[in-house]
Amino acid sequence: MQPVRVGLLGLGTVGGGMVNVLARNGEEIARRAGRRIEVLQAAVRDPSRSRICDTAGLALTDQVMEVVDHPDIDVVVELMGGTDAALEVVMAALANGKHVVTANKALIALHGNEIFQQAQARGLMVAFEAAVAGGIPIIKAIREGLAGNRIEWLAGIINGTGNFILTQMREQARDFSEVLAEAQALGYAEADPAFDIEGIDAAHKLAILASIAFGIPLQFERVYTEGITRVTQEDIRHAGELGYVIKHLGIARRREDGVELRVHPTLIPERRLIANVNGVMNAILVQADAVGSTLYYGAGAGAEPTASAVIADLVDVIRAMTTDPASRVPYLAFKPNRMTDLAVLPMADTQTAYYLRMQVDDTPGVLAEIATILGTTGISIEAVVQPEPPKGSDKARLILLTHRVFEKQLTEAIAQMEQLEVVSGSITRIRLEHLNGA
Amino acid sequence: MQPVRVGLLGLGTVGGGMVNVLARNGEEIARRAGRRIEVLQAAVRDPSRSRICDTAGLALTDQVMEVVDHPDIDVVVELMGGTDAALEVVMAALANGKHVVTANKALIALHGNEIFQQAQARGLMVAFEAAVAGGIPIIKAIREGLAGNRIEWLAGIINGTGNFILTQMREQARDFSEVLAEAQALGYAEADPAFDIEGIDAAHKLAILASIAFGIPLQFERVYTEGITRVTQEDIRHAGELGYVIKHLGIARRREDGVELRVHPTLIPERRLIANVNGVMNAILVQADAVGSTLYYGAGAGAEPTASAVIADLVDVIRAMTTDPASRVPYLAFKPNRMTDLAVLPMADTQTAYYLRMQVDDTPGVLAEIATILGTTGISIEAVVQPEPPKGSDKARLILLTHRVFEKQLTEAIAQMEQLEVVSGSITRIRLEHLNGA
Repeated sequence: MQPVRVGLLGLGTVGGGMVNVLARNGEEIARRAGRRIEVLQAAVRDPSRSRICDTAGLALTDQVMEVVDHPDIDVVVELMGGTDAALEVVMAALANGKHVVTANKALIALHGNEIFQQAQARGLMVAFEAAVAGGIPIIKAIREGLAGNRIEWLAGIINGTGNFILTQMREQARDFSEVLAEAQALGYAEADPAFDIEGIDAAHKLAILASIAFGIPLQFERVYTEGITRVTQEDIRHAGELGYVIKHLGIARRREDGVELRVHPTLIPERRLIANVNGVMNAILVQADAVGSTLYYGAGAGAEPTASAVIADLVDVIRAMTTDPASRVPYLAFKPNRMTDLAVLPMADTQTAYYLRMQVDDTPGVLAEIATILGTTGISIEAVVQPEPPKGSDKARLILLTHRVFEKQLTEAIAQMEQLEVVSGSITRIRLEHLNGA
Repeated sequence: MQPVRVGLLGLGTVGGGMVNVLARNGEEIARRAGRRIEVLQAAVRDPSRSRICDTAGLALTDQVMEVVDHPDIDVVVELMGGTDAALEVVMAALANGKHVVTANKALIALHGNEIFQQAQARGLMVAFEAAVAGGIPIIKAIREGLAGNRIEWLAGIINGTGNFILTQMREQARDFSEVLAEAQALGYAEADPAFDIEGIDAAHKLAILASIAFGIPLQFERVYTEGITRVTQEDIRHAGELGYVIKHLGIARRREDGVELRVHPTLIPERRLIANVNGVMNAILVQADAVGSTLYYGAGAGAEPTASAVIADLVDVIRAMTTDPASRVPYLAFKPNRMTDLAVLPMADTQTAYYLRMQVDDTPGVLAEIATILGTTGISIEAVVQPEPPKGSDKARLILLTHRVFEKQLTEAIAQMEQLEVVSGSITRIRLEHLNGA
């Protein structure tokens, strides 16, 4: 059978990794897919730049549209990154009748609804396994492997840089800024690390996961997004003393009245499997009604792990090219005309437990004042820790864990507590999830 | 679109769970698959028996062939268990032009080659996700999600009963026989627990995983199979002191000269994610060249977790029913005419590290004698522990960890050591794998 002819947009880390994997495993892949994958052309910004892959036999061009318009190319693989230019070329590729594989989470999270509509109208495939959690086949697992289930919630460590930073802070008792600098030196974090440490990258991925889990349209703009920049060494230590680890999680939870979509630092019990996912590794825990808890772990980024997902998508595209489009796996797991309009709930209406840290006067009766406010706002306390104050200080730390409450209750309680004479400064709050399952 | 009409063979735990999940999630599943799944008829041994599911509207028969011959049934779901009768009806269903979904690991491991040949000849699907690790979509992950990779090895906790027993022995410091009795009382272990505790069930699953990972025919009869019946409380404790956990693993490893296929108790470092998979839960760690390590965790058995996998298979069958059979995912991941004939290596040629426990005289020079034998057989020692002997005893325990060696070296060394005057009785050996990755 004739090879499938692929055009690459971008030949950086992932594109180069993909060319290398295809060169090494081309035969093994053809044994699975029944056809070889041949990269016919690659569009790059600077054709003279050196590459991590062998470019002999690979036609390079600096004109993206040359690839998109190439009459012999069956599938366009978009690895340019960014959103505006990427959207334009992906739409052009679809207009030209080409299937699309992309690793671009921002593109799918922001423009997926529009892209899928165009693809659907033309009977084309758009595959994006590499957009979430790199090489972990999590899109496939949720979209196909758990197709019999009603998915209740999922929680994921879906940004490797953030997880690396939190892991180093915990294991080596170092400060955020110091570890961030190390992550940048190691190439894990960009010079502008905002996408990672502010949670935007994780929010892109969460929007995609939530859509395929619940059958709702992509709605990145409704994801509550809180980064890890304010997590302190001290919070990590206190959490540890109480038996918890702080992870940066993306959480999507279905409720009767809507869905919670949120990315934020989260305390989780240290015995959970997912609490032990360290360094740059990713993991997603999925709770579904029939199967119960399942967890998927692996490398969330990097040249070859991401290429692994791109190639798996290509193999799926090869298999589905001769299929009636109506029987293919839907882009977002559910048939486009069978999406639901479950509301994304405001954060005030979400429910979690909380870790609170505050500075209080080192005098009797302080806890009673705090407890009274928590009591009247309907918040029950799970644990209180008051470390010995530094010698000669008249201020003490107070650490509290609450049971599950609505965020609006906690916001009200914090406002009241911050008014107390005995409380100095603002109160730190980090959400806590028990994540029963793994 | 018309519903897909399914016939069930067996309406016990899994069949009943499947009917319940379809009743509860039928609408959600149709939103994904584009068609409803309708169970038209179920064959049961005793139609008058009470069931875990509602059987109103479900035609029951005690004649298996009625379902297999039913002209309106598109897909036969085989949940009878056993091998001989199951093989007969599956072959009959295929002869009648019906697709087959099965949860029967023994059937696939023993007769899969024959079944797939028949299905291939008739352009029919045979799906068996539920045959390995229950609800974890591990077949799909390896066969499709990692299609770009050369899989190097995999190691799995793929028998929940065995894992429950080892977990209880470790966490509660109890003996094997006591925990086995508890597992039987809880319904985790059968009255005849041999399939679980002797490793036969795990060997069935390992044969299937190895076939789809490496593109080799199913060859259950070549899997080295060692159960957990000889793992003692004492070994678990010594392993723990050295930083290891004992798990019953199925391991498949590709080498230049062949593949290792083996099921046996294994020491693994306690910090690995998979070492922390406890109770009846299953997990499979896969090492592949592009993606690196990935791990898949979830419930390996039970009514609804298994039904989850059966229904996912049904959805795949629905989607592929209108596909050119040549483009479908191959039964065993690789195209039938592209299998390789990598040899399954004899255990003597496999390589692992080892934990050794022996009873020795409590006299000087004993370790020197042991170390001399190990040295001359080319085995290096990683650790030696000699617990304080009981008061008044002239015998001591000696615990050794070795580095990786060929099994034949170790077998030779053990034979020599057991000849020593200072060694009493036989030497216990448990394999040790570092499982770098998770």
